[in-house]
Amino acid sequence: MIYLDNAATSLCRPKEVKEAVLNALDTLGNSARGTHEGAMDASRMIYDARVKLAAFFNCSRADHVVFTSGITESLNTVLNGLLSRGDHVISTDLEHNSVLRPLYRLEEKRGVRVDFAAADKRGSIDYGDLERLMRPETKLVVCTHASNLTGNMLDAARISAIAHAHHALFILDTAQTAGSHPIDMQKLSIDVLCFTGHKGLMGPQGTGGICIREGIEIEPLKVGGTGVQTYSRTQPPQYPVRLEAGTLNGHGIAGLSAAIDYIQEIGVDRIGKKTADLTMRFYEGVRAIPDITVYGDFSGGHAGIVALNIGDRDSGEVSDILSDEFRIATRAGAHCAPRLHEALGTKDQGAVRFSFSWFNTEEEIDAAVDAVKTIAGSF
Amino acid sequence: MIYLDNAATSLCRPKEVKEAVLNALDTLGNSARGTHEGAMDASRMIYDARVKLAAFFNCSRADHVVFTSGITESLNTVLNGLLSRGDHVISTDLEHNSVLRPLYRLEEKRGVRVDFAAADKRGSIDYGDLERLMRPETKLVVCTHASNLTGNMLDAARISAIAHAHHALFILDTAQTAGSHPIDMQKLSIDVLCFTGHKGLMGPQGTGGICIREGIEIEPLKVGGTGVQTYSRTQPPQYPVRLEAGTLNGHGIAGLSAAIDYIQEIGVDRIGKKTADLTMRFYEGVRAIPDITVYGDFSGGHAGIVALNIGDRDSGEVSDILSDEFRIATRAGAHCAPRLHEALGTKDQGAVRFSFSWFNTEEEIDAAVDAVKTIAGSF
Repeated sequence: MIYLDNAATSLCRPKEVKEAVLNALDTLGNSARGTHEGAMDASRMIYDARVKLAAFFNCSRADHVVFTSGITESLNTVLNGLLSRGDHVISTDLEHNSVLRPLYRLEEKRGVRVDFAAADKRGSIDYGDLERLMRPETKLVVCTHASNLTGNMLDAARISAIAHAHHALFILDTAQTAGSHPIDMQKLSIDVLCFTGHKGLMGPQGTGGICIREGIEIEPLKVGGTGVQTYSRTQPPQYPVRLEAGTLNGHGIAGLSAAIDYIQEIGVDRIGKKTADLTMRFYEGVRAIPDITVYGDFSGGHAGIVALNIGDRDSGEVSDILSDEFRIATRAGAHCAPRLHEALGTKDQGAVRFSFSWFNTEEEIDAAVDAVKTIAGSF
Repeated sequence: MIYLDNAATSLCRPKEVKEAVLNALDTLGNSARGTHEGAMDASRMIYDARVKLAAFFNCSRADHVVFTSGITESLNTVLNGLLSRGDHVISTDLEHNSVLRPLYRLEEKRGVRVDFAAADKRGSIDYGDLERLMRPETKLVVCTHASNLTGNMLDAARISAIAHAHHALFILDTAQTAGSHPIDMQKLSIDVLCFTGHKGLMGPQGTGGICIREGIEIEPLKVGGTGVQTYSRTQPPQYPVRLEAGTLNGHGIAGLSAAIDYIQEIGVDRIGKKTADLTMRFYEGVRAIPDITVYGDFSGGHAGIVALNIGDRDSGEVSDILSDEFRIATRAGAHCAPRLHEALGTKDQGAVRFSFSWFNTEEEIDAAVDAVKTIAGSF
């Protein structure tokens, strides 16, 4: 199988990740629960992973790196934990349902008001429009770093500057960029960064987290055991336990920690360059094929994603042919990105998404281009 | 290391679990996200795991088995998702902070009223007392199946009958019994069963779930992408996606699924019998040692747990000596069970908890008894 569905999850992983998970399954106790060897090994490994992730994203404090089960939990925690009745939020049409549905629910249940910067037919937003949405009661701006549908990146530094000029927080969803694009919390002035472990960070599923700037107080989504301050009726207020009730996924975090080592060894820039080269090779290969529509804008920052359609063929049908006849894995349909499909005019057709990683090769890209050509020619 | 901290997490696991996780890391895509081989393999594996868990707990519908990151998330989801302003809840002094803190928070934030059936000095509750707490507005009774501190089991069938006689739901926390005690949702008339994957079920950390009786509607804690019904602004209403926003921990669930196979192959009864024999062997060995206080009641149902103190020695000091000098892993302190420590009169001292599993041996038990004797004699 040629795996071009890396935006959904990393199927290919460094062997070091698997070794770390195996080793963890054999040796780790429950982190922060006891002082014996197994528990201490777990505590040390997890603290070490926080230190690595803090360095990776340039988060000023390792104890402000919080682990979650994935970025959906991260985003739910952050949005529910920061927004109260009367608050106003700005987001964009590029967002995934992991941002949209928490916001819609907060609108309905908590009277939070939300505005979205509109995407045009190329999937781009106007930053002037975004700034015009700012109000005195705007509590935060939350957006994705790159669309999971078109791959188009948003200008995080620019949005951050707009948010801060209006005294709002800036929350970044890095699901499609962490691991392949340098993301520096200080340089981009990110208040809260949400990440997932199982995509570009090459870790196991069930891992993810939140990097929090010092001084930002997020109310927990879950409360429960922490191994400390047992007699407090409320969740302890200090990070990371503030947002980490219950046993952490130590086995998964061990894998993620090894993955971060692997990425740092190669270098995010090198991974990003290779992914970008593969992406552009694919884009250049398919854009000229008759009947092909490629979505998005390839003139600016871009994640390793190309979404396209062949004429008016159903995207699911095309993806199935790619899988069944060419053994090429892609993703069709709506990709949990309803507002962007509406902006692109692809609500009914969906789109076929090809997404690339460090582990793909030029030969795989060329095979995928040839497959698209063949399918386009056969209709 | 002699690992007697199984109530915290299973350090020893069947090799089949590790093989399943490794295989999953090599082959699985993202469940319910696409139709290619990797995604379909993930979807099938996860559905298969639901079927196995439904059979394991006798949950009437496999699609009403919901996966979470662990039982803390399960309990937070269930309690926050069922309780509204004006509701009354009954629980017990035996509960873990994963039940207590969500309830305390609901009292404070949502005006839910909570009563606790009191534990006596042996850690037992009076079922008549519990029934007398019932009110017309009692929405549910939530309790642990066994204390994570003393190991004493609650009579789930009896509490279930009391709850249902008063038209309340019955929610069971099986953190300390699943895998070593038969738990049948139909026979015990359990409305919602919460489980964790990484203790008696022998699976990886980061796994757990909820088994829900048909007709019970729990509001989601997290909302987000589901891979279906992308254009709905709200989380789809059908289980399991209703409560499963975001990418599931497929790698962990693969391990849990293999663990369930392993347990079913041996048989819960056989695992329970061996664990109970080891527990009683330890209890009989330590109870007669001068200066030892063993907590709880050993005349009825019991999980594989024995908690004790040596004179008035700090439990942390004793646990450290066991670890450092005897390489025996136990857990000292408060065990996230504040109300029960208050009932036992051990709030300051804590207790040293020994907890046993299928993988322990009689030799290990005897070594632990000898170690306790030696430490008790040395003070």
